[in-house]
Amino acid sequence: MNLYKIANEARGLAMDAIAAAKSGHLGLPVGCAEVGVALFGCAMRYYPENARWVNRDRFVLSAGHGSMFLYAWLHMAGYKVSLDDIRAFRQMGSKTPGHPEFGHTEGVECTTGPLGQGIGNAVGLAVSQKKLRAYMGDLIDSHVFCLCGDGCMQEGVAMESLALAAHWKLDNLILLYDSNDVTLDASLSRTQSEQTADRMRAIGFGVQTVDGHNIEAVVEALERAKLAEGFPQIVIVKTVIGKGIPEVEGTAKAHGESGIKFAKEARQRWGLPSEPFYVSEETRAFFEKRLAELSNSYRTWQTRFDAWKTANAATHELLFGQKAALSLDDFPKFEKTVATRTACGEVLQSIAEKDPLFLTASADLFGSTKNYLKDGGDFSANNIAGRNLWVGIREHAMGAILNGIAYDDFFRPSGATFLVFSDYMRPAVRLAAMAKLPVIYLWTHDSVAVGEDGPTHQPVETVDSLRCIPNLVVLRPADAEETIGALETAYNRKDGPTAIILSRQDLPVLQGTSRKNVASGAYVVQAESEALQAIALASGSEVALAISRANKHTRVVSFPSMELFDAQPEDYRNATLDPRCKDRTAYEATTGHFWAKYQTTQLHAIHTFGLSAPTVEVLKHFFK
Amino acid sequence: MNLYKIANEARGLAMDAIAAAKSGHLGLPVGCAEVGVALFGCAMRYYPENARWVNRDRFVLSAGHGSMFLYAWLHMAGYKVSLDDIRAFRQMGSKTPGHPEFGHTEGVECTTGPLGQGIGNAVGLAVSQKKLRAYMGDLIDSHVFCLCGDGCMQEGVAMESLALAAHWKLDNLILLYDSNDVTLDASLSRTQSEQTADRMRAIGFGVQTVDGHNIEAVVEALERAKLAEGFPQIVIVKTVIGKGIPEVEGTAKAHGESGIKFAKEARQRWGLPSEPFYVSEETRAFFEKRLAELSNSYRTWQTRFDAWKTANAATHELLFGQKAALSLDDFPKFEKTVATRTACGEVLQSIAEKDPLFLTASADLFGSTKNYLKDGGDFSANNIAGRNLWVGIREHAMGAILNGIAYDDFFRPSGATFLVFSDYMRPAVRLAAMAKLPVIYLWTHDSVAVGEDGPTHQPVETVDSLRCIPNLVVLRPADAEETIGALETAYNRKDGPTAIILSRQDLPVLQGTSRKNVASGAYVVQAESEALQAIALASGSEVALAISRANKHTRVVSFPSMELFDAQPEDYRNATLDPRCKDRTAYEATTGHFWAKYQTTQLHAIHTFGLSAPTVEVLKHFFK
Repeated sequence: MNLYKIANEARGLAMDAIAAAKSGHLGLPVGCAEVGVALFGCAMRYYPENARWVNRDRFVLSAGHGSMFLYAWLHMAGYKVSLDDIRAFRQMGSKTPGHPEFGHTEGVECTTGPLGQGIGNAVGLAVSQKKLRAYMGDLIDSHVFCLCGDGCMQEGVAMESLALAAHWKLDNLILLYDSNDVTLDASLSRTQSEQTADRMRAIGFGVQTVDGHNIEAVVEALERAKLAEGFPQIVIVKTVIGKGIPEVEGTAKAHGESGIKFAKEARQRWGLPSEPFYVSEETRAFFEKRLAELSNSYRTWQTRFDAWKTANAATHELLFGQKAALSLDDFPKFEKTVATRTACGEVLQSIAEKDPLFLTASADLFGSTKNYLKDGGDFSANNIAGRNLWVGIREHAMGAILNGIAYDDFFRPSGATFLVFSDYMRPAVRLAAMAKLPVIYLWTHDSVAVGEDGPTHQPVETVDSLRCIPNLVVLRPADAEETIGALETAYNRKDGPTAIILSRQDLPVLQGTSRKNVASGAYVVQAESEALQAIALASGSEVALAISRANKHTRVVSFPSMELFDAQPEDYRNATLDPRCKDRTAYEATTGHFWAKYQTTQLHAIHTFGLSAPTVEVLKHFFK
Repeated sequence: MNLYKIANEARGLAMDAIAAAKSGHLGLPVGCAEVGVALFGCAMRYYPENARWVNRDRFVLSAGHGSMFLYAWLHMAGYKVSLDDIRAFRQMGSKTPGHPEFGHTEGVECTTGPLGQGIGNAVGLAVSQKKLRAYMGDLIDSHVFCLCGDGCMQEGVAMESLALAAHWKLDNLILLYDSNDVTLDASLSRTQSEQTADRMRAIGFGVQTVDGHNIEAVVEALERAKLAEGFPQIVIVKTVIGKGIPEVEGTAKAHGESGIKFAKEARQRWGLPSEPFYVSEETRAFFEKRLAELSNSYRTWQTRFDAWKTANAATHELLFGQKAALSLDDFPKFEKTVATRTACGEVLQSIAEKDPLFLTASADLFGSTKNYLKDGGDFSANNIAGRNLWVGIREHAMGAILNGIAYDDFFRPSGATFLVFSDYMRPAVRLAAMAKLPVIYLWTHDSVAVGEDGPTHQPVETVDSLRCIPNLVVLRPADAEETIGALETAYNRKDGPTAIILSRQDLPVLQGTSRKNVASGAYVVQAESEALQAIALASGSEVALAISRANKHTRVVSFPSMELFDAQPEDYRNATLDPRCKDRTAYEATTGHFWAKYQTTQLHAIHTFGLSAPTVEVLKHFFK
């Protein structure tokens, strides 16, 4: 079989799908067709009949706009992506959306498209696979292949992530950098002057550069990269973007769909018949043979796995069994005034004990965010079992790496930084919400109560801006008791990320707070003792304030999570916020934009950035 | 004068201020004291009596947590930071807040603290200074000095910014990297393994490494860096964090305020008397002499400047004169259906013609964001007059660099990317709002109407999340006519940033829209023709939808900006949204969280992420 012929057929599929959709990105699937053969036809180990095989090589298309690359090769390789699916590229409800979507198409490891994120996800997958080795030994010898372009490489999140990959010596990570010297707008030389190979060596990568249209050379480089130990690997594949498409190849115009008007001539150059969506019998036969080999390899591995399973039943159950729901009923009640970040740190120790697969990260702030797992050890090349990830001052990479760990679905990732710096990782948080990843964010140093550090470090709009993200649950516990409930709720959520907003300052443990009620989003924390005249609504540190200002006719409702409350049955919502009571005052040390939906008539919130002064004075300034 | 003595007195000021506040970061001001002397005592040119002297060297403390470094040296150098101000470090209303705040303290060039941002700002300042040379020639030979630590260097925004600095060959930029091998949490070796000098050389920087406690060596390196041409420069200054503080020096503990308990012994080691806030007569004399020299240099320059001014009155007026308000009254009305991004692009040409100092940037999307200034030329080392900034796929750096340009206050910066990627630059947007910088953001590809690119590229929550940021005006024009008004409004805003949200898809030019009314935030775009029974509220592309669904009793209000409307007098607000009319329906292709504040009774919005399909189908799906 001529592998170059297969490459050209993949080019044809991309051209036909994008021409049919009149939309899409031709540049990468056409430019990287030989890379595709090298990966799916030769170097990568996978098994479409068990697409989530634990020891498969993972493939991440960080340059998600080149989605037809992925769909074409998944189709050829035997995944559940049919030619009809490819014909429906970018159409409503198809398996082949504009950018790859995790959970939607088998074989798609990550939701990618926003540039740079896939590189971070790949690092996370590599971390997860390294950590699996701590449990399964050499049963796990998978690699993570990540294909990215100049766009990904220019993004800060990628550079942060690569620094960590090198620091952790993730030699199971192989980055394929589709280096075609062209970005969407122009030649790469318009925006870049670096010596990439030197830069990557300086970071700590093994570097190879190959002709991306020479399949043998690419395969050889990938095989060498697979064998390399001690350093992550980058293979710089020099390609011609849109190779073979007249007028556009090698130029910025090749990126998008403008090449479709040259489809006919391109097909001729590629040696393809006029029939669209063409895959030859030889190609089918090649991949059938490949599948048979992969199937053998899978079966051999499965035999070893079965033996391991018998000998390691408990570990097997831990990794592959049903996860039990977490209960923190037995966690002792905090008696004293305590910062919720501190309370959180103590509860985390208990969670870590109950679930050995629970991990946590901090962006150079373990000392402040208090989420260090005391018996967890530090993840490193020398301690792949370590459960604390020291990610440095790289919030965005932390977000993308936590997503990668969550995509792999063995370890339960959480990560911490100051709430105000959640902005630095926001694009990754958005993707966690979209891809329904159960990441837990521990964001401390809430509100202007941060004090002396001043407005740059005081989140005021941050909680509201997080509430905007669909499928992100935001929890702002009022005290240590609600913090216990928040962690239980977050842990038990499986279909999306949860943010827990924690105080730097000490907060009293309030009388009426309840860990159990957190899951309902809002509840009466102090009932009116006489006829109801007013409702006070508050979250977090302001629940105490609301209670302090309540009189006998006031009902105080603690509101740890609007998203969870809004999901409650109407009965519960009406019982909590009596609709007949129109006098409603909200207290929250945020911009407070979300309270209007509860028909509040008064709002005590913060409408400007904060200021630098001791906490008590700042709070007095804003809540006179 | 013994310069080392001055350094120790600066250490003392930092120690005393932080001890008084019981809060702050000792590590940098103490560790970099010799660097401070080298900068403010030797290498830097400045003139405190004209703190904004156009040809001054700029100093950016990217590691803003080390603010006592800046305050101590500003004090010694003769800026308006008194010892009393330093005594009031981190107190309410003082000139010495926890992190440096632009516009609040003379001599503070940028609001810094969120790590990495200052590096981007410094690149922006260097761009601005380079561009000034296009007008003022060798009258401008200033440098931008930026002091940063490991934290800044690890951040993606810094790496993106440094790549651009190298690409643009900004040889007026000198980065001082306080390399102390310690981050807040731990030794640097816990999170980093790279060869920084090699990496910086590979990027395209001139690199020197010096002992940061050897003043002569630092000065020599800085002087060499000042003379270097063709490349930006980094001086890696090896320091011991918290040098001289017993028990903590050289360790992560030196970062914060924990060293204050060793104040007494530290003072002894530094050779300081027991008197706190001590500055010796010799130090005063040294800086008086230095001021006299700087004053001479300033005066000599001023003479040249005056001659230039006489010969170049028009250019002088352009750069230093009062800026006229922009009027777009004469801009022709768009007749045809047109995407607002396209309309924006055309209006920008007119703005660029009226204001030669108007600049624009795009994150590799000029072809899509349409903001390229046709006669503007491209900024590069060979064309410092260029007005289009090609920043590559580096949104975050773009944000920080636009801020840097705005801090310099000569050029009017704008920048574009897809709206959904505003998340990538959000930390810089927040700082623009906080520092009151008049940056204009042109964010295109609004809402699910993006179509086939699918949920990763479809902003749904993004507009709402931007509305959360204090002092950011968000404008979402309904059509080309409102786009003209939006650009006029944005241009004329001087005390903060403005975001303009633009459509990818064509939008009809509506009958009732008015460029003039945009400035009031909301206005009646179609009045009820019979008795008022309902009000429809909408922004952007949904104004047409609201009009199409209105009957004779419905008033349709176009709402380009909630922030601007909320700032209108009550009379106007009541006249627009008749308080007697309780039936209020909002239409917006966003998460729609903000409409509740206008007492809407129905909401047509989007409560999930979008989906990949042609625009018409996606819109039909969400707005049945």
